[in-house]
Amino acid sequence: MTITKEQVLQALGNVEEPDLKKDLVTLNMIQDIHIDGNNVSFSVVLTTPACPLKAMIENACRNAILHFVSKDAIININMTSRVTTQKNTGVPGVKNIIAVASGKGGVGKSTVAANLALGLAKSGAKVGLIDADIYGPSVPIMFGLEGARPMASQVDGKTRIEPIEKYGIKLLSIGFFTDPNQPVPWRGPMVSTAVKQLFNDADWGDLDYLVIDLPPGTGDIHITVTQSFPVTGAVIVTTPQNVALADAKKGIGMFMMPAINVPILGVVENMSYFTPAELPENKYYIFGKGGGHKLADILEVPFLGEIPLIKGISDSGDAGKPTVLEEDGPMTTAFVQMAERVAQQVAISNAKALSAENIVNN
Amino acid sequence: MTITKEQVLQALGNVEEPDLKKDLVTLNMIQDIHIDGNNVSFSVVLTTPACPLKAMIENACRNAILHFVSKDAIININMTSRVTTQKNTGVPGVKNIIAVASGKGGVGKSTVAANLALGLAKSGAKVGLIDADIYGPSVPIMFGLEGARPMASQVDGKTRIEPIEKYGIKLLSIGFFTDPNQPVPWRGPMVSTAVKQLFNDADWGDLDYLVIDLPPGTGDIHITVTQSFPVTGAVIVTTPQNVALADAKKGIGMFMMPAINVPILGVVENMSYFTPAELPENKYYIFGKGGGHKLADILEVPFLGEIPLIKGISDSGDAGKPTVLEEDGPMTTAFVQMAERVAQQVAISNAKALSAENIVNN
Repeated sequence: MTITKEQVLQALGNVEEPDLKKDLVTLNMIQDIHIDGNNVSFSVVLTTPACPLKAMIENACRNAILHFVSKDAIININMTSRVTTQKNTGVPGVKNIIAVASGKGGVGKSTVAANLALGLAKSGAKVGLIDADIYGPSVPIMFGLEGARPMASQVDGKTRIEPIEKYGIKLLSIGFFTDPNQPVPWRGPMVSTAVKQLFNDADWGDLDYLVIDLPPGTGDIHITVTQSFPVTGAVIVTTPQNVALADAKKGIGMFMMPAINVPILGVVENMSYFTPAELPENKYYIFGKGGGHKLADILEVPFLGEIPLIKGISDSGDAGKPTVLEEDGPMTTAFVQMAERVAQQVAISNAKALSAENIVNN
Repeated sequence: MTITKEQVLQALGNVEEPDLKKDLVTLNMIQDIHIDGNNVSFSVVLTTPACPLKAMIENACRNAILHFVSKDAIININMTSRVTTQKNTGVPGVKNIIAVASGKGGVGKSTVAANLALGLAKSGAKVGLIDADIYGPSVPIMFGLEGARPMASQVDGKTRIEPIEKYGIKLLSIGFFTDPNQPVPWRGPMVSTAVKQLFNDADWGDLDYLVIDLPPGTGDIHITVTQSFPVTGAVIVTTPQNVALADAKKGIGMFMMPAINVPILGVVENMSYFTPAELPENKYYIFGKGGGHKLADILEVPFLGEIPLIKGISDSGDAGKPTVLEEDGPMTTAFVQMAERVAQQVAISNAKALSAENIVNN
């Protein structure tokens, strides 16, 4: 008996995308079906290359063909992706803007933003990172780009800033344009203008995700960015203690205000506990315990992960490059999982905003 | 042979105030001399009750009398103090305003400010604390004053805010006037007005030191506070890593700008290392090493101390009350020494600004 394309589609119509709650065929995620005797090949077009359910979906497709079509089928599945978008982000070619925010500083927001951008890129996505923390830009040091100056290029007769490429992502930091030894006592409106230029005057090209590291707190820059560029969603970074928790609530509160109305993708708890590298069984809750989960629960948003702090007694502590680029370890694993969960929440948010049937066609 | 007042003064003229580099008699620090046979009593009026050299100066006075006057003298020294001031701080009755600042947030600036205020008060000084960190006020939680609202009183026909008294100091926080669950997306000028009211509209009474916890970074509030109220000096808080160090440099840079011109009293390095309470010999440099000393050296300002982070494996990490109020321990010792060094720098700064002869007469 010959296997037909219709049989394959019917079988895969039984496989549900767990986040989007519809089957893969309805979602138009099955493409390029080829059948040659018992050989069945097709592509599954996910909504993000960082999909944490990739292996589960691939398995479900395989089982559906074996069960509903033929137990002798030789199946070749090409797991691919096309990142979804739901609206004009205000930056041509950029599908999604992800804001990384925190109620207060020093919670490791910039570390989370950098590792989120790199984690998304590791999965194959095209990623940009804007460091808009005018008062404490940290991208130049974190990426070993101190003293770097972006090039200017002419595009369509206009002068454009060329983002700097490093570790596979495109970067711009307000720190590339200021002297690290000079103070920046700028009044609010000047700051907002500077940050808008990082979006508008740069040649970002095509990006699946543009991650923006916002300054801590809620101020002029937040109002400007969220009003000028439709942000897909915000990731809130907190540490586990109560003091920071109250501030993080405020950070979230601002995004939820009607005038701003940015969806919260979820909460990341950073510096969840300290573990000496030599004593992996010891967890020291130096900044409190469980605050991130608590905040996510109260606000009814997803918990996107806890990032531990792990150091050996001989480590100096000044990181040379972002953690995600290091060898595997508990911190790298935590960051990669967080990036997957953020990508998942972006896809869910986009799907909610769109007619779900057309999700892959954008 | 009868001991005379002149002999006592001549002997004490040999005792130098190590910071002010003049002898105690020239500095007018010796008062209330009484002589009755071999009994010699007098007061030494220091420039701060938190003087770290108190014991050393007392010993030097005792030895001077025994050596130059009579080895049989029975000496009774009353070590007292009158905190100096050098200028009109803009707040009636307040002798010195000490700003606590940092280039970036999350370095424990509020913790340092609270423990500085409490450490100064512990020595006997009259101390106030303004929490001007509009985006993350932490005094309400740190002092167990969540939900507290200051009283209003009528003074000379005007409505005045009454600072709240707790643990021996007077407190006002911008957090007493905002809802912790509501966001504060205020534009710069509104914020500056709110902070000025904490100085101008409150009934501070007589204070030796008014400590102000500034928001991280350098923005509208810093410009407003330093231009409206002549700040005696600024304490810069940093953590040991490079990223924060670059920001701290900027924080300091702003104070040194001609338009602002606030003396830097020195650098405090917070979270210098982590030590498990059970393993007091292990030091984990989780945030880097030596950055505070480096910053102080580069900027040629005093290093005011390193504050370690010490927790047991069973500690939850959410502190109930400020460290200085706890039992003695390495963290408490570090904070008390820091407060003494800050008071010392204020006294030196005041002495430099004044005719040194009149230092105690203000």
